[in-house]
Amino acid sequence: MRQRVDRIFAALETEVDAIVLWNASSHLTDSTFKYVSGVTRGGYEGCAAVLRKGLRPTLLVSTLEEESAHTASDSDVVAFQSQPALREILQITLASPRRLGVNADALVLAKANLLRELFDGVELVDVSAAISAARLVKDSDEIERVRHACDITNEVAADIPSMLREGLTEVQLAARIEQAIQSRGGRAAFNTIVCFGKNGSEPHYSPGDVPLRRGDMILVDFGSQWSDYCSDITRMYLFGGASSEQRAMFDVVRQAQASALELMRAGVAGKRVHQRAKEVIDATEFAGRFIHGTGHSIGLDVHDGGGLNDASEIMLAPGMILTVEPGVYVPGAGGVRIEDTVLVTADGPEVLTTVTKDLVEVAV
Amino acid sequence: MRQRVDRIFAALETEVDAIVLWNASSHLTDSTFKYVSGVTRGGYEGCAAVLRKGLRPTLLVSTLEEESAHTASDSDVVAFQSQPALREILQITLASPRRLGVNADALVLAKANLLRELFDGVELVDVSAAISAARLVKDSDEIERVRHACDITNEVAADIPSMLREGLTEVQLAARIEQAIQSRGGRAAFNTIVCFGKNGSEPHYSPGDVPLRRGDMILVDFGSQWSDYCSDITRMYLFGGASSEQRAMFDVVRQAQASALELMRAGVAGKRVHQRAKEVIDATEFAGRFIHGTGHSIGLDVHDGGGLNDASEIMLAPGMILTVEPGVYVPGAGGVRIEDTVLVTADGPEVLTTVTKDLVEVAV
Repeated sequence: MRQRVDRIFAALETEVDAIVLWNASSHLTDSTFKYVSGVTRGGYEGCAAVLRKGLRPTLLVSTLEEESAHTASDSDVVAFQSQPALREILQITLASPRRLGVNADALVLAKANLLRELFDGVELVDVSAAISAARLVKDSDEIERVRHACDITNEVAADIPSMLREGLTEVQLAARIEQAIQSRGGRAAFNTIVCFGKNGSEPHYSPGDVPLRRGDMILVDFGSQWSDYCSDITRMYLFGGASSEQRAMFDVVRQAQASALELMRAGVAGKRVHQRAKEVIDATEFAGRFIHGTGHSIGLDVHDGGGLNDASEIMLAPGMILTVEPGVYVPGAGGVRIEDTVLVTADGPEVLTTVTKDLVEVAV
Repeated sequence: MRQRVDRIFAALETEVDAIVLWNASSHLTDSTFKYVSGVTRGGYEGCAAVLRKGLRPTLLVSTLEEESAHTASDSDVVAFQSQPALREILQITLASPRRLGVNADALVLAKANLLRELFDGVELVDVSAAISAARLVKDSDEIERVRHACDITNEVAADIPSMLREGLTEVQLAARIEQAIQSRGGRAAFNTIVCFGKNGSEPHYSPGDVPLRRGDMILVDFGSQWSDYCSDITRMYLFGGASSEQRAMFDVVRQAQASALELMRAGVAGKRVHQRAKEVIDATEFAGRFIHGTGHSIGLDVHDGGGLNDASEIMLAPGMILTVEPGVYVPGAGGVRIEDTVLVTADGPEVLTTVTKDLVEVAV
């Protein structure tokens, strides 16, 4: 994927001899490895990639995954048998670099220390800003993968009302949702959040053995991952008819989300989108109850780098994909969040999570 | 979980004023945060923990997960609203440390750099060896959680023969297995590996749209995660009757696995277990075809730190839980791996993955 490497180098502020990505063990891998290689299979624990200006990437992969690595497009693949062998290959490949670029947001300190040991006197330059900038704007292949992930999510969300019945627990509903994702060829992009009733007041709540009761408002925040790319959605359901309090809370968030969405077009500052959502909520009885950012970039990672919040320096541009997800949270009472995955285009926002965002009342 | 903090400090080689764990964004979190806190819910992206000798841990958590953090046992919880607020709290909590311990295996470079900025002149000491040593020996609560994860895995593995039918694809079987895990209250500990026929020759193969055919040998490597703790198993199936070549390959691995298991007792070097498995395989026509380590520690992470291989410095002790998983891989032909999750006890190995490890022939 030479054009993705080119995008990273084009965004660099400091010249480097090469950029090294180096995955740690277990889940501590840098998804930029998948970004630059375009691999469609494999995990690449402990594997590395060397990026050089104007050249296609070199992937240094364990023999355990050598065949998977050949799903990479426009990349060279070198296989190693052990970590000591990888270190030797890195030394041969990079010779005597003066400045090596690293992704400080995803490289663990132990690997950074190893690079300093391998290359005496080398300066490690943090190129995470350039990597984030490149990954923030998706190319057509990435957009199609996110679109497919959102299609799965739309189908599953449409099925949720039919899954609800009295006594079903949060954990059970979360499992049903993740099974529905899998039966459509995807996997859960993150641990599904299901909150019944007052549990909606914690934004990152984890589902428990809590049974569904008549009158419960239900918050479901989930996403599908398809071919490594993620979608993210939050929808609200009501098991029975909504009370006036539940309806009021929902309507405020619905209005805030609609107002924020209107601003999701090229040239608008990400910070401004957040401020708009916040202004709408803060003008109501729920002032101060919106306690997180309005959205985040999404792609290979659910939180793909950068977002829509007070500290945001993002200027919206075509090809960016972000969530728009204001919410209100009232401890002891509950919460409402409405979230879409949104593609910024030259003509404005394209909401990829097209399933209804009405408060769906389920007859009991 | 003060006793877990004590275990880490007891294993330290260099004295430090405190240890700081600091999760990065997305999936780049240090599972040691869960280890020291014992939390049963929440993801803790961007959250931190401060560990001090003889004291219970202090968890610095986002307000988004403050309620979840109260599932921690024997810990203090301080909530922050933003990353700048977290940095201030860290400065107040730690005052002017001279030496801070960090887990270099899981702390990203950006957070290490932030610590250096926050604490002028501080020395960051890599305490990953002490953390690994502490986590390597599981306490009774951890053992029970792994045991439960293995129970789920046993049930699912026993059901696999009933899932097989001609034309089922690798991807479909993997989804069926993960759904079966979820319906038992667990989740997939890692992306399920399903290989039909010759695809078994790549140890970390990712399932594809490959249909099952009569005569295929089937390799299934999967694990359940339950209450954050993992299990890991590999079993072999035959769709039809086994050929003499398939049987020969299976029997060698079965013998190697049995020989390695015999050595899984306190006082044996991890390296020795690996050598034994390798010796058995290298004495057959499959010499040189065993191309990975014999096992890895498992717990909060599937690859929990350390293992059974040529570079291993582990001396087996009661409470350790490791996989034992020799294999042979013949490109173009296929592969066999047999894997158990094994608890080391004072009396020898306790295999937690108790489902049959025979080559299960499924009538077609």
